[in-house]
Amino acid sequence: MKSQITNALSDFFFEYETPRQVLVRNRRVGVVCRLIQLGVLAYIIGWVFIYEKGYQTTDTAVSSVFTKMKGVGYTNVNGSERVWDVADYIFPPQGDSSFVVMTNYIITENQTMGKCPELEGANNCSSNADCDEGRFKRHMTGVCVQSTRTCEVLAWCPVEDDRKIPYPPHLMSAENYTLFIKNSVTFPTFGVTRSNLVEGIDTAYISKCSFHPEDDPLCPIFKLGDIVQMSGFNFETIAHKGGAIGIVIDWTCNLDVDVKHCKPDYRFHGLYGNPDEVDKTRASVGYNFRYAKHYMEDKIPKRTLLKVFGIRIDIIVKSLARKFDIIPTLTAIGSGVGIFGVATVVCDLVLLYLLPKREFYKNMKFKYTDTHPKDPDSETGSTETQK
Amino acid sequence: MKSQITNALSDFFFEYETPRQVLVRNRRVGVVCRLIQLGVLAYIIGWVFIYEKGYQTTDTAVSSVFTKMKGVGYTNVNGSERVWDVADYIFPPQGDSSFVVMTNYIITENQTMGKCPELEGANNCSSNADCDEGRFKRHMTGVCVQSTRTCEVLAWCPVEDDRKIPYPPHLMSAENYTLFIKNSVTFPTFGVTRSNLVEGIDTAYISKCSFHPEDDPLCPIFKLGDIVQMSGFNFETIAHKGGAIGIVIDWTCNLDVDVKHCKPDYRFHGLYGNPDEVDKTRASVGYNFRYAKHYMEDKIPKRTLLKVFGIRIDIIVKSLARKFDIIPTLTAIGSGVGIFGVATVVCDLVLLYLLPKREFYKNMKFKYTDTHPKDPDSETGSTETQK
Amino acid sequence: MKSQITNALSDFFFEYETPRQVLVRNRRVGVVCRLIQLGVLAYIIGWVFIYEKGYQTTDTAVSSVFTKMKGVGYTNVNGSERVWDVADYIFPPQGDSSFVVMTNYIITENQTMGKCPELEGANNCSSNADCDEGRFKRHMTGVCVQSTRTCEVLAWCPVEDDRKIPYPPHLMSAENYTLFIKNSVTFPTFGVTRSNLVEGIDTAYISKCSFHPEDDPLCPIFKLGDIVQMSGFNFETIAHKGGAIGIVIDWTCNLDVDVKHCKPDYRFHGLYGNPDEVDKTRASVGYNFRYAKHYMEDKIPKRTLLKVFGIRIDIIVKSLARKFDIIPTLTAIGSGVGIFGVATVVCDLVLLYLLPKREFYKNMKFKYTDTHPKDPDSETGSTETQK
Repeated sequence: MKSQITNALSDFFFEYETPRQVLVRNRRVGVVCRLIQLGVLAYIIGWVFIYEKGYQTTDTAVSSVFTKMKGVGYTNVNGSERVWDVADYIFPPQGDSSFVVMTNYIITENQTMGKCPELEGANNCSSNADCDEGRFKRHMTGVCVQSTRTCEVLAWCPVEDDRKIPYPPHLMSAENYTLFIKNSVTFPTFGVTRSNLVEGIDTAYISKCSFHPEDDPLCPIFKLGDIVQMSGFNFETIAHKGGAIGIVIDWTCNLDVDVKHCKPDYRFHGLYGNPDEVDKTRASVGYNFRYAKHYMEDKIPKRTLLKVFGIRIDIIVKSLARKFDIIPTLTAIGSGVGIFGVATVVCDLVLLYLLPKREFYKNMKFKYTDTHPKDPDSETGSTETQK
Repeated sequence: MKSQITNALSDFFFEYETPRQVLVRNRRVGVVCRLIQLGVLAYIIGWVFIYEKGYQTTDTAVSSVFTKMKGVGYTNVNGSERVWDVADYIFPPQGDSSFVVMTNYIITENQTMGKCPELEGANNCSSNADCDEGRFKRHMTGVCVQSTRTCEVLAWCPVEDDRKIPYPPHLMSAENYTLFIKNSVTFPTFGVTRSNLVEGIDTAYISKCSFHPEDDPLCPIFKLGDIVQMSGFNFETIAHKGGAIGIVIDWTCNLDVDVKHCKPDYRFHGLYGNPDEVDKTRASVGYNFRYAKHYMEDKIPKRTLLKVFGIRIDIIVKSLARKFDIIPTLTAIGSGVGIFGVATVVCDLVLLYLLPKREFYKNMKFKYTDTHPKDPDSETGSTETQK
Repeated sequence: MKSQITNALSDFFFEYETPRQVLVRNRRVGVVCRLIQLGVLAYIIGWVFIYEKGYQTTDTAVSSVFTKMKGVGYTNVNGSERVWDVADYIFPPQGDSSFVVMTNYIITENQTMGKCPELEGANNCSSNADCDEGRFKRHMTGVCVQSTRTCEVLAWCPVEDDRKIPYPPHLMSAENYTLFIKNSVTFPTFGVTRSNLVEGIDTAYISKCSFHPEDDPLCPIFKLGDIVQMSGFNFETIAHKGGAIGIVIDWTCNLDVDVKHCKPDYRFHGLYGNPDEVDKTRASVGYNFRYAKHYMEDKIPKRTLLKVFGIRIDIIVKSLARKFDIIPTLTAIGSGVGIFGVATVVCDLVLLYLLPKREFYKNMKFKYTDTHPKDPDSETGSTETQK
């Protein structure tokens, strides 16, 4: 019994099976099939391996972004000069990857909680009956103020007058602000960490550089006016009503080469709601929000309301690292062999169904167990037809 | 020599190899094998290609979200009426994808830095010895105040009393606030950008629509009460202690059809810490944070502390675009051919080891170089057994 | 006609093709080929299936994070005691996944809009000619103030003096603050939702636990000092100039086993700009931003400017769930069969080109349609050479 197993094992190990093949010496079929096979081979080597780098595995990064604006804005509204520094024009202040730079504003000072008439033009009334109490969008008191012919509301008074957006925008000087971006990415699968302050970007360089797509593509300092322009907008237009800009930091890295070639690529494009969009019937252009500074005056809580128009900047990190890996390589090879099999099937169809000598080739290729399946499992032997 | 290479090349090009095969005419084996092969074919075509769309490559989007709340809240606490507008109840103000809508609050006005006793119930003491100086959670002065029998602390005084959360919540009117979401997604691989203001969603529609899962599934205006209800919560419960809701914007797009079919799908679900979770022993229900408004009164810095209970809304964009690509198509075909090979191996096992006529089929299929491997590499020829 | 189709169909169903093979009984070739085949099999089963779990499909999660700090800081600057509670030292206040804990600050109180000379050391001048009006970084008035020999600027006055960062940092007590993290992840493909408050993490446990990588790896309460230390920094250094720390919550889940084994793994590492980085020539160490508290005094708007140095914490959720799926399984098997085919090709090359008996094996394996391709499509028959 044991020797039987040993025999079977030794048989298994000392034998080797290889398919028997017909070598068809036919120019037409030969050329067609070789061309199909060469095409498949070219596709696998050229497209899958070289062009699409199918021998590599991919990973996306976890990333972290920190931003810092610099620059001082200056306004002179009705003879009252003031400057706006970073603590005044950036929301939120702590350097997030998504923030707003104020470029225009409507200020309503000294608001207190109380009752006052609405602006002319909104909620017009002729008698108290026109002013339902407690409607949802405004909290009405039910009184029609005769001097303005508008309803009285319970609100922060005086109510904000935002019917006209200041033009030219108050803070056109925002064009000269600079933005500094720090970004680090980590590809956890490959254990690689990179910063956008790559080799050669040191303090000396940063102190004097300004991003330019061709001349200084790695400088992490961006002039706000340049950002707006590279996104395809006009600064005055976007500063007037506000808008949103995406800065995409693209890390596409081939880690089979030296990691120092893994560098960020900055791209700029407009997001939703930009004021010079062609289609004016589309909803909601511009970008604005309201922000209040609260204070106490003579024991009465008051606030200064700012309707802020600004440029919202979203920094979006997009990352893809690739590195050689055995599994995608062998999967690509394996499925390539499968496609080779498809090529053989196609050639066989030509050989067996289209050629004049197809009957001859059929007999060469196939060996029949018997002519007609009358008694399939009988032990009465078989014949190879036409041999 | 040159003609030799030419010969070899012409041989290569004009020849074509195709495997020789046995055509077994046996009903049982035939039916079994054809069924296996049809099953594999059905799997590849039906499942991989049609159901799972294996001929497509996928991409996820970079996305950008902007939100805007509208509506006015009204409170009447102890006869003091006031309204709360957007600048009062949204944190942060600038329209981020993650924000909090205040629905309830505990207000502590006129706090100054100083020394005052703790609330009754916390840090009870009978003598100064019970109040260690400078403990970590509170900064104690080491004095036991006899009137309240609690330790004295250095803190913003008076200390906040948050032992009882106001009920019913102060800002039940938050139910009527509306949320406007702008979201744009870009699939970089396919160069497609979409906004949630898709075709047909214009200013006129937005000004009067309100999201409804069946009737208005594309309206980007959401009533806060609806959002809470669609997440499966009770508004009064969540407004009382706060809670967190995720709004998932799902972009699942087949870019092989017209891009206008690529539309967002909004879904709502509760996140961590919702107050009506069943398992009350689980930690930390509700959502709250503390927020201070600082001011100066009579040269003394003061603050108004708000413990804000609210609904935190996280807008999560989930995206997956698919488009035809040659590589996944051929990989699927190639590995499908491989699985066909597996089917052949299974059938061969049946044929060669299970059928009564297995010895006969074995001889049909195999040709032996010699009967027993005595002298493997001898040039003495071979016999084909049993032929 | 109909019977013809029926015949063809029955032929198709009752027939079965299997390749004819040569069984080469040669020890050398046999052993080589069997070893290659076993190697391929071991790779497919061992590496692709067991090690890389190639039978599983993967999904990443949508996640939501909420944070809450606790603890009170204490400063005694020039005899003026004060405490700092959560509303004072966290930016932003509402519990985002990215926030800053203030550890040091430069305070400039009572700033009003006006004209004042620059700090000594910056913008030195000897006459008005040295002070160009309206330069970009500062808004100069064009006057050289003789007392300080610096240019006069229009700014919030007095100007901030940030030439010296306080050392030791004011808020060393921040080391004892605790951070509570709530995180929920949802794997949409698999319909699985998990929270970092996993089974066994209840209120009782949370109230007394503190994260420790080995002893309490699932406790969601983190001491700030521990976080800094686990990231590899010295607390005093990072508190002095600020820095950034990433907390990675890693959800790597095998959903083929019970979902309760799907647990978060917390990791800590420094991000950009940490102050004890070796390479001091690299740009921009530390983390700081400016923040202003506005108030009104005697009808004059004033502000208190804080330059905040702090620890910025980014919570990054990394997720990967795996579960059995039929498509990757069959794709892996299919491409494995393809690789088997490659093994056969290699063995055939050995057999047909390297062995002494190669001519013999060539004749066994191949059947030729005719010796030389003179008249390829002629019907004159063929010979099997050397048979």
